[in-house]
Amino acid sequence: GLHRSIWTGQPLKKLEQAKFFPPVQTPMLPEGTFNNKLAFITGGATGLGKGLAQNLSQLGAKVVIASRSLERLQETAEEVSKATGNEVGHYRLDVRDPEAIKEVFDQMESQYGLPDIVVNNAAGNFITPAERLSANAFTTVINIVLNGTAYITLDVGKRLIKAGKGATFLAVSADYADSGSGFVLHSACAKAGVEALTRSLAAEWARYGMRFNVIAPGPIETKGAFSRLDPTGQFMSRFIGKIPVGRIGEVGEFTNLASYLLSDYASWVNGQIVRLNGGEYPCSSGMFTGLSEVTNEQWDALQAMIKTVKGS
Amino acid sequence: GLHRSIWTGQPLKKLEQAKFFPPVQTPMLPEGTFNNKLAFITGGATGLGKGLAQNLSQLGAKVVIASRSLERLQETAEEVSKATGNEVGHYRLDVRDPEAIKEVFDQMESQYGLPDIVVNNAAGNFITPAERLSANAFTTVINIVLNGTAYITLDVGKRLIKAGKGATFLAVSADYADSGSGFVLHSACAKAGVEALTRSLAAEWARYGMRFNVIAPGPIETKGAFSRLDPTGQFMSRFIGKIPVGRIGEVGEFTNLASYLLSDYASWVNGQIVRLNGGEYPCSSGMFTGLSEVTNEQWDALQAMIKTVKGS
Amino acid sequence: GLHRSIWTGQPLKKLEQAKFFPPVQTPMLPEGTFNNKLAFITGGATGLGKGLAQNLSQLGAKVVIASRSLERLQETAEEVSKATGNEVGHYRLDVRDPEAIKEVFDQMESQYGLPDIVVNNAAGNFITPAERLSANAFTTVINIVLNGTAYITLDVGKRLIKAGKGATFLAVSADYADSGSGFVLHSACAKAGVEALTRSLAAEWARYGMRFNVIAPGPIETKGAFSRLDPTGQFMSRFIGKIPVGRIGEVGEFTNLASYLLSDYASWVNGQIVRLNGGEYPCSSGMFTGLSEVTNEQWDALQAMIKTVKGS
Amino acid sequence: GLHRSIWTGQPLKKLEQAKFFPPVQTPMLPEGTFNNKLAFITGGATGLGKGLAQNLSQLGAKVVIASRSLERLQETAEEVSKATGNEVGHYRLDVRDPEAIKEVFDQMESQYGLPDIVVNNAAGNFITPAERLSANAFTTVINIVLNGTAYITLDVGKRLIKAGKGATFLAVSADYADSGSGFVLHSACAKAGVEALTRSLAAEWARYGMRFNVIAPGPIETKGAFSRLDPTGQFMSRFIGKIPVGRIGEVGEFTNLASYLLSDYASWVNGQIVRLNGGEYPCSSGMFTGLSEVTNEQWDALQAMIKTVKGS
Ligand SMILES: NC(=O)c1ccc[n+]([C@@H]2O[C@H](COP(=O)([O-])OP(=O)(O)OC[C@H]3O[C@@H](n4cnc5c(N)ncnc54)[C@H](OP(=O)(O)O)[C@@H]3O)[C@@H](O)[C@H]2O)c1
Ligand SMILES: NC(=O)c1ccc[n+]([C@@H]2O[C@H](COP(=O)([O-])OP(=O)(O)OC[C@H]3O[C@@H](n4cnc5c(N)ncnc54)[C@H](OP(=O)(O)O)[C@@H]3O)[C@@H](O)[C@H]2O)c1
Ligand SMILES: NC(=O)c1ccc[n+]([C@@H]2O[C@H](COP(=O)([O-])OP(=O)(O)OC[C@H]3O[C@@H](n4cnc5c(N)ncnc54)[C@H](OP(=O)(O)O)[C@@H]3O)[C@@H](O)[C@H]2O)c1
Ligand SMILES: NC(=O)c1ccc[n+]([C@@H]2O[C@H](COP(=O)([O-])OP(=O)(O)OC[C@H]3O[C@@H](n4cnc5c(N)ncnc54)[C@H](OP(=O)(O)O)[C@@H]3O)[C@@H](O)[C@H]2O)c1
Repeated sequence: GLHRSIWTGQPLKKLEQAKFFPPVQTPMLPEGTFNNKLAFITGGATGLGKGLAQNLSQLGAKVVIASRSLERLQETAEEVSKATGNEVGHYRLDVRDPEAIKEVFDQMESQYGLPDIVVNNAAGNFITPAERLSANAFTTVINIVLNGTAYITLDVGKRLIKAGKGATFLAVSADYADSGSGFVLHSACAKAGVEALTRSLAAEWARYGMRFNVIAPGPIETKGAFSRLDPTGQFMSRFIGKIPVGRIGEVGEFTNLASYLLSDYASWVNGQIVRLNGGEYPCSSGMFTGLSEVTNEQWDALQAMIKTVKGS
Repeated sequence: GLHRSIWTGQPLKKLEQAKFFPPVQTPMLPEGTFNNKLAFITGGATGLGKGLAQNLSQLGAKVVIASRSLERLQETAEEVSKATGNEVGHYRLDVRDPEAIKEVFDQMESQYGLPDIVVNNAAGNFITPAERLSANAFTTVINIVLNGTAYITLDVGKRLIKAGKGATFLAVSADYADSGSGFVLHSACAKAGVEALTRSLAAEWARYGMRFNVIAPGPIETKGAFSRLDPTGQFMSRFIGKIPVGRIGEVGEFTNLASYLLSDYASWVNGQIVRLNGGEYPCSSGMFTGLSEVTNEQWDALQAMIKTVKGS
Repeated sequence: GLHRSIWTGQPLKKLEQAKFFPPVQTPMLPEGTFNNKLAFITGGATGLGKGLAQNLSQLGAKVVIASRSLERLQETAEEVSKATGNEVGHYRLDVRDPEAIKEVFDQMESQYGLPDIVVNNAAGNFITPAERLSANAFTTVINIVLNGTAYITLDVGKRLIKAGKGATFLAVSADYADSGSGFVLHSACAKAGVEALTRSLAAEWARYGMRFNVIAPGPIETKGAFSRLDPTGQFMSRFIGKIPVGRIGEVGEFTNLASYLLSDYASWVNGQIVRLNGGEYPCSSGMFTGLSEVTNEQWDALQAMIKTVKGS
Repeated sequence: GLHRSIWTGQPLKKLEQAKFFPPVQTPMLPEGTFNNKLAFITGGATGLGKGLAQNLSQLGAKVVIASRSLERLQETAEEVSKATGNEVGHYRLDVRDPEAIKEVFDQMESQYGLPDIVVNNAAGNFITPAERLSANAFTTVINIVLNGTAYITLDVGKRLIKAGKGATFLAVSADYADSGSGFVLHSACAKAGVEALTRSLAAEWARYGMRFNVIAPGPIETKGAFSRLDPTGQFMSRFIGKIPVGRIGEVGEFTNLASYLLSDYASWVNGQIVRLNGGEYPCSSGMFTGLSEVTNEQWDALQAMIKTVKGS
């Protein structure tokens, strides 16, 4: 169907070239790829996490999702399980609470066993000038995104080491984690921390059979992200000019990349940050990329001028 | 089969953890993914390029390979076409020669049409201390790897623009292009240039429907690479300690990632450098990663010492 | 004097090439460079922070240092002030406490005014396998390093904006923030966050006249760092092989770079991470850099072998 | 004086915040810093290279400049030597020619000795859409910028190794070398190669007493650069919005950073790319940085909307 902004109901702007880059959202991995695999996904009841839960479940995994809203957990677990025929478990969990995490993994271990796949996808974010950001609001985002990811990873990682069992980890970052970004300071700091966690453990815990990677997405329309990052529905249409491919991303594009990285097809991909953003960063940052508005006739004139220049 | 070094006939060393990271080399994309697609691969008669030719062909693509040795071109074209049932064309080509490139694409355009997929995979490399590197040897590698990639890309890109046709490009770099590396100066410079080409055109030519990505592999045993980078067959076994996953890569792992990036499943992946290296770079570079040799008992003692430290 | 390890009293190992790279530690900026400037430095009573306090004070700045140990604050303030003849203030402060930060800046504003220079240097760190890291220990380091830096920056930044006053910020990160590192997971995550904070505000708050940069040092012998990162005094001598320049750094090398970045000579340096590490990262990470042990005779033999290789 | 565009004679636009970031262009290093040092600078007769020649000469160095136009070489050598009282030599040289380089260093060795400082600053560049770039034009820029830098470095490096003499190298790249950039494809590729050369030799040749660093500048008005990158004098005023600090750079800011990196104060800075660009890259690339146009009133409204959002 047509791509529509959550708020305005209007289709999000696309640039003309988007026609060359059609989103393909059907699962790309072979059926049964995740048979006998147990996957744990934080924030798995909505948005990208839900998309991934569906994809893994459809490809054979038993999936367990965890986040705060019990209602959404139940709805998604039921919906996905019904669609795929595979079991989908859920735990109510606030990832900021290490004790609660311990309890969830205690329960999960006895109910399902230890996971083969762990996805740190839960996050909070919103736009704000830094001068309006309180210490408390900053910490809240660090707590969910960075500390939450660390708590989950350390708790389950220690269990895996004890059990001599390998696993694959994926964290969801954001494409501005590397460049930093104005107006989402808290999120940029937290996501950069998550990327460092991924690289550090990719080096340290590979000896225990664990792999760690990150997907750093650009804008993909989900209610959670867009309601707090583009509350009027106007910004994305303006930012689209920064995305060379000329459109935002789709959930299914994220889930295909994610399930590849989580599968054994990617056994040798470790410690990597894969940006999924249509080329927005770093490519569109080059200063002269702004010349794309110059017309052919203007280029003719410019080239003539350049040729006549003598020396330095 | 057992993984054996080309020269010694001995299996390459693996670290114990490698058992957790089995290489899966069967094609992961759905059958027919590349039906009606035409792919052009430089250096496609051997090594990674040959692997990719097979994979794309098996998934439905018409493939054209180009390099210098006619004999190998013929052998590979025949072998692949026989195995997959799809046509595999070939052109003798030295990528350092822009005129020859023009002729090849003239011919290809009339024989097969313009490609949907272009893979810049041809390269030359060898280890040497920089003080033994002549200006001439340096230039030779730049000419093949960087200029060759640019000549191919500019020639076919201009044709595609004229025809209003989109396409997907992939270049094969190396994981040391970002860090630089001693003893392969020429290759590091050339590959860094290829990565900049990829990012630059990802920004500039997306408006014409073209996407550009790079795979930067760590060591994958091919005769071409290993004979000139590890002529005695001893180095890789020593370097294995730098690869967290504990083993080198396999051709099929490269081809699966490559065919994903070349497919429409990756429509929104543009301008990205994906490193395929078991976590070697950047992760294993962190200074304290070297502490992996410390034993559990030593850690007990170290922690006791750290606890007794008072102040700065 | 001779460079000696804190613990063993033995000189730290240097490689032979270190003789080409003598540390020059005398202040390099012109006298009076920081006249009429007010500088605020967290962790300024010891180690790198103390060195920087001395340097800025000597070049004319009024310096205020802040950390937890009142005794060390008093000692350093007195020592530096005596040596330079310029006023050095101090506040007892735990940077994890936003309320305490508010009080310190309230006091400072009335006692000295708002700072022209803010240095986020306070940190905590120690080596540990991640499987021995508790959620609590992880959070402690995040709280000091990342949150502490953010609290300081947000509090003083808001004051500066209100006052219409510009300022220059410097944060001290670590060279493994980009690569990640095993065995210092908590610190790598926190420092990566600090780098993202720097880049984000470099973009967002330049409009208010603020610049933000980072120095990411490799090993420089201070009691605080080395006692918790190399408690036996053995590791650094082993890691020295990863530092191309063949020696660790000296405090005066850090302070010269830092005072340059903080001065108006660097008005156009903004949002940058400058690594000060003898070339350790990223350069020494290239896989083939390991070939530095190959002898001249072995290279002769290797080159002969490479030349005889035919084809791919 | 007022900063004026070469072509229009009009002052280049500055943003309001530029008043907080005054360029300080007087030499910052102590008098005599480069006494008894011999410096070799390609492209040293004009622009940034000339500025650096002046700075090093003023601080005591004997300087030798080399480029193609004999007239400019003579003029600059005379002008600088007259101003500083120190000898300034010059050689006519096209850096694309390894034979000519050999002759120049033969002569230089006998006339002045081997250099302590080598600056690879010569370059060619111009804006153009990639579809208007010929293979020949691409190669020309690679030849000057990448191959020229390599030829100079390999030739003089081998001599230094033979003589057992250390040296410090600096190359001038561009801030888009990392991101890539549209419309300067050739330059982005060449500069990325130069950065890889720097990192590779920083690792490999430190054992011989050589250090290697890069400055990657954003726009600094020189006739050579601006005449071919902004032939109408209009682009920079538009691009200024991408530079957080709100102005372009000045030659003296470049020379101060360059002479620091070339001095023994920076003995422990090796293999680093220092970007000098007012924060343009990577900081201003973050997607949400574009929100700087949102007014205070609009932020009030946005925050109210964000607060009312319930759930994901
Ligand atoms: N969509 C984009 O454009 C975009 C771009 C870049 C990065 N990302 C990243 O992609 C990931 C998914 O985002 P999304 O777009 O799918 O938005 P979303 O639907 O809002 O997903 C966030 C999820 O995190 C959960 N969560 C939040 N706080 C939690 C807590 N304290 N404990 C446990 N769970 C918590 C939420 O559930 P509850 O509220 O019920 O707990 C929700 O399910 C995030 O990491 C986000 O940063 C998204
Ligand atoms: N294998 C690894 O460990 C590894 C690691 C990092 C990167 N890579 C990269 O992966 C790519 C493939 O390497 P490989 O390992 O598969 O080695 P390979 O078999 O030697 O492949 C190189 C191919 O390039 C072709 N070629 C060389 N010079 C050429 C020229 N002037 N014109 C046209 N074709 C030319 C060769 O064919 P002809 O000689 O017949 O022309 C050969 O088919 C290369 O880009 C390499 O740098 C490989
Ligand atoms: N030296 C190195 O090799 C090296 C390498 C990479 C990075 N670094 C970084 O360089 C900076 C300085 O380190 P250093 O080597 O000079 O070690 P240091 O002497 O231990 O300095 C750390 C300072 O931080 C202060 N501090 C710690 N916790 C604090 C808190 N909660 N509130 C306020 N102040 C606090 C300490 O004082 P109190 O304990 O009295 O509060 C101490 O003065 C740190 O950011 C460190 O991470 C150092
Ligand atoms: N100014 C900027 O905004 C800016 C921004 C980013 C990077 N840069 C870099 O800064 C460096 C200096 O540039 P600039 O702005 O000072 O421009 P410039 O005045 O044009 O300097 C370039 C110099 O290179 C010399 N040169 C060109 N081709 C040569 C060859 N084949 N052999 C020997 N010398 C050659 C030129 O002299 P002849 O023509 O007489 O040979 C000239 O002196 C360059 O590397 C440039 O890429 C400048």
